[in-house]
Parts: sequence; structure tokens; C-alpha cells
Amino acid sequence: MLSEFDLIKKYFVRARPVRAALGIGDDCALLAPSPGMQLAISSDMLVEGRHFLPGADPRKLGHKCLAVNLSDLAAMGAKPVAFTLALALPASDERWLEPFAQGLFELADQYDCELIGGDTTKGPLTINITVFGELAPGHALRRAAARPGDDVWISGTLGDARLALAGYWGEQRLSAADQEAAAVRMHEPQPRVALGMALASGEGAVEGATLARAALDISDGLVGDIAHILKASGVGATLDVDALPAGPVLARQPLALRREFTAAGGDDYELCFTAPRAHREAVLEAARRTGTPVTRVGTIDAAPGLRWTDAAGAPLALALAGFDHFSAG
Amino acid sequence: MLSEFDLIKKYFVRARPVRAALGIGDDCALLAPSPGMQLAISSDMLVEGRHFLPGADPRKLGHKCLAVNLSDLAAMGAKPVAFTLALALPASDERWLEPFAQGLFELADQYDCELIGGDTTKGPLTINITVFGELAPGHALRRAAARPGDDVWISGTLGDARLALAGYWGEQRLSAADQEAAAVRMHEPQPRVALGMALASGEGAVEGATLARAALDISDGLVGDIAHILKASGVGATLDVDALPAGPVLARQPLALRREFTAAGGDDYELCFTAPRAHREAVLEAARRTGTPVTRVGTIDAAPGLRWTDAAGAPLALALAGFDHFSAG
Repeated sequence: MLSEFDLIKKYFVRARPVRAALGIGDDCALLAPSPGMQLAISSDMLVEGRHFLPGADPRKLGHKCLAVNLSDLAAMGAKPVAFTLALALPASDERWLEPFAQGLFELADQYDCELIGGDTTKGPLTINITVFGELAPGHALRRAAARPGDDVWISGTLGDARLALAGYWGEQRLSAADQEAAAVRMHEPQPRVALGMALASGEGAVEGATLARAALDISDGLVGDIAHILKASGVGATLDVDALPAGPVLARQPLALRREFTAAGGDDYELCFTAPRAHREAVLEAARRTGTPVTRVGTIDAAPGLRWTDAAGAPLALALAGFDHFSAG
Repeated sequence: MLSEFDLIKKYFVRARPVRAALGIGDDCALLAPSPGMQLAISSDMLVEGRHFLPGADPRKLGHKCLAVNLSDLAAMGAKPVAFTLALALPASDERWLEPFAQGLFELADQYDCELIGGDTTKGPLTINITVFGELAPGHALRRAAARPGDDVWISGTLGDARLALAGYWGEQRLSAADQEAAAVRMHEPQPRVALGMALASGEGAVEGATLARAALDISDGLVGDIAHILKASGVGATLDVDALPAGPVLARQPLALRREFTAAGGDDYELCFTAPRAHREAVLEAARRTGTPVTRVGTIDAAPGLRWTDAAGAPLALALAGFDHFSAG
């Protein structure tokens, strides 16, 4: 069995650090942000049996635990720079560590995001990544920034991750091919980093410093997550439930299920953002430039609360709730 | 039972953030280091049953999980600025959360160190703090910086935390008063932040930019931890085992136990540092100024390896090993 120090050396120490002044192997890592830039910092903890099933593919898990953190940077519009990894493992099992590190670093390298430190210990499988991004002051996409009249946009598609979970649980019957296709969204989310950075940039903006105003990433279901924007901004919203972009597998399911899983799924890791109406074309251009589909799904209102309509614009009463890590499961 | 959001709001959101541009409640926290300063970053994960006993006093645990991270900043010479907290809890138990938050924030406030974000989830009790400190470039106390001829110093005293553990395990018989006194060192370590900052400052330095050269914090036992300095610096050391400063309870134990627990205890959270001989008086002055006892225990040698002597200077063969989180326990 590998010792703690051998484990760190073998799987997590790579070439000489480039960006960090001092990386793994001292009491602290040293990180100097580019002059004048703010650091955006986010931390997500994934627990076996809670965020992933026992026996989950370690390579996909390595991808996902970094992806959900990068998704938080994307929601702020920050450029990924570095991350720390704290890992509790039942045993230092190389058959698990090797593919885990592979999945982790494949995604990290895609964004030139450097592992600069962390901790490993024995314990129930728990993965905690803290990620660091850079952002110019005044360019953060904050939850409190939505304004009445803003368009509400969604990146990519929603609901396939939730559908895959329904398949695993036996709530829904899916063909093997559909289950596999939907499961990719559950296990290998792609953080919308390029889109987030474009939305936080001034490119194409005519009102304010950024293209989008408020943004967040949808991790616990749109209905629960957008409530954070509405509350922080002191506004409401009217959304067309039938405009919500369903994932390709979910799109072939009955209407009621499409509505439920797009509006209140979970594990989507898409961006929900608001932008001035005057930025409509510029948002579409940013989406084209970054190769990220976006869909306009509603409008921010001055009146508090979330209102739903159907495709015909008729009011609709949806009984949906977001995911809460203590009350659910 | 409190929901995840209510829990965060009730126990972890405090007054408006002062230092962070944006604190808890958005996708990321925003942190702007002082102009020209580097960030020192460290992350430690504490797991129930591994780093603390089931049923451990939550207030002391709140203190300790931040203290061990601040100790890493101290070992680098950095000034504490902020931290994130990721917490997996079996249930959102307010009788646990309230004292935990109290112990955590009492220590945080002592160093004006701000909680800027994190994550809470359901799972086996696991606490992961990532801490941020500031440091002027060129002033970090690095493990690789020791040089032959340097004095080796230890802050405070060693071994009482290990003695408390021996008492709990029944390895040693201690009076109730001794057990209690030793246990304070185990449960409520005091990070040597002021001393670390003084050692990293240029005040009193005549050789180089800093008062000390190499430093680390002793968490897994001196013998194992100093090996990291020796290896990183490509040097060796000769230490007087009888010069090692024993904790007040351990000091009344037999010689063999004193030697074992000062040299290879664990959970000490004292600093081990090296400094040029020419800085001897200035180190003592920094210790007085910061109210931190320091003891000179040996010398860095050019020849690799760690050599022990007794108080008379006679060579001594000690069979001791540091603590490894995967091979032990």
C-alpha cells in the first residue's frame, strides 16, 4: 500500500508548477494573481453515496469533481487558474487513484488549471476541491445584479442528468442506449467556462461593463437555483416552461416529464443568466463564438415571485421544488 | 431540521464581509490580495474517527480545524486573511453546529480571518478548510531553504498532545488533572502565527531577506516532519534529543517517554525552523516580542541524514517514525 507521501508524489505531483510561485510539497502553495485582478474562489465537496454512487467510475468522478467547481467559476465569469484537492480515501488503492487522477487532469489541462496543493487522508470517500479563477474588478456576474426587463437565458440543455438518475432508480424505463446517452450528462458535465468568460467581458456590451448581468450555474434544478437570483436581486421572473431546452433524450419523453425535469432536475451544470434586452444579439454572438447553445426562456419582472407560462403564454401552476442536501434523500 | 440554505444563513453568514469583495451566497467568493502581495494557500481535511474521536466536543473541533490550517500559514510566515469551509454532516444538528461555529469564529476573529465561502452537505462528519494568507514576494519560509550551519529551533513545547492520546488509549496512566492539562494541547492547539510572521519579516535579518530560512509546522511528529526540510534542502541535521522542549505534563514523565513523545509525537502544531547562526539574538528577540518561547535544539549539516545526540553530546540511536495517514491506525 502506498504511504500518504508516495501517493501524493506518484499521482498528484506533476511537472514543475508554472503559474504558482510554489506548488505541492510545502506548508502552503503560493499564488500571485495577475496584477489588478481579483480571485474568484469556490469550494464544492462531493461525498460517496450522496453525490455519486458507491463504485462510481473513478475517471468520470475525477472529471466531475473538478467540473462542478469550474462551473462555479463559469457562473461568475472567471478564468480558471488553479485548484487544491482534499481527498479522503478508504485505502490508497492505485486502481482507483490512477484513473481518478487521469479524469481530473484531463479536464484541468483543458483549462490550463493547475493543481497547487491539498491534503490526502484515510476516511469515507470524500472529495473537496477549492478552485481559483481570475476576474477583472467590476466584471463578476453576481446573483444580485438582475434587473426588471432583463431576458433570462439558459445555456445548453437541461434534464438529461435527472432522467439518467430516474433510470437508475427505476422511476423511468429507458432503453440501454438512452440510459447511456443521458448518463453522460450526469457523470461528465462540461462546465460553461468559455461562455461565462464571454458574458463577463465587455465585448458587445452597451449597458454596463458586462454582457450579462446576473448568472449562476444550475446544479440543484432551475426552479430552486433561479430563486437565488430573484431573492438576491429583489425581483421576480416569468418563464416559459416549454421554452426550457430539454436534453436530447428527455426531449423524446412525454410533456409532463419534460417540464418537470427541465424545470426541477438537478446536476445540469448549465448557466442561467440575465442580460439586458439590448444585448440580445450580442449574447447570441457570444454563444456562437464560444460554441455554446443558448436559449431565451423568459423575462425578469419587478414583481417578486416566479411565474410560469406554457408555450402559448397561458399561466401555469407548477408544483416543483429544488434539491436540498439535507431534506432530500 | 434546518435546510442547507437555512443552516448556512444561521450559523455561517455573519456581518457584511469586510475584506472580501463578495462573500458567502454567490457562486464564488471574490478576494483581492493587497497590491503586490502573494497569496499563501493551504487545505487540511479532518475526518471523524481519524483526526478526532466520534463525539468530540464541537466547540474545540471548530477551533482545531481552523487552527491546523492557520498553523500552515504560520509555517510559511503568512498573515491570515480568509478561509473557506466545506462541511459534511450526518444531519444538520443545531446542538452541534452552534458550538462548532462558536469555536471556529472565536479563533478566526483573533486573527481577523474571514469566512468567505464553502459548501455544506450530508455525509460522514468531515471538515475541510482552505485558508488564505498574504505574504510579500521573497519572504516565504520554504522547506527547501535550510543551509548547513543553520541553527534548528522549535517553538513552544512538544509531546503533550501525544501524551493525552496515550492516556485516552490506556497506553499511559495519567492523573485526571494531567490528562486534562495534556488534552488541551491535543484539542486546542494555538497556531504560531505571530512568530511565523516575525520570522518571515526582515526585522533583525543580516543574512537574506528573512529572519528564518526554512520552516514547517510539526503535525505528524518532529522526526517525520523535519525529514521534509532535510530532503527538500538537500542537507542533514544533528539534534539533541534532550534539548527538545517537553510539554509541562510530559516533562514529569520518564526520560524514554519524554524522548519518544517530543521527537515523534504528533498534533504538536509548533514551528520547526532553521535560521543563520548570525540571527540567534534576533530570533530570541522575535520570540520575546511575540510572546512565543523558542528553543535551539541542533544544527543543520551538509551530510544528509538525521543524527541524534543526548544532552552530553553523545550519539544516540533512536528508532522513531513519523505518522502516516495511510499506514498507521
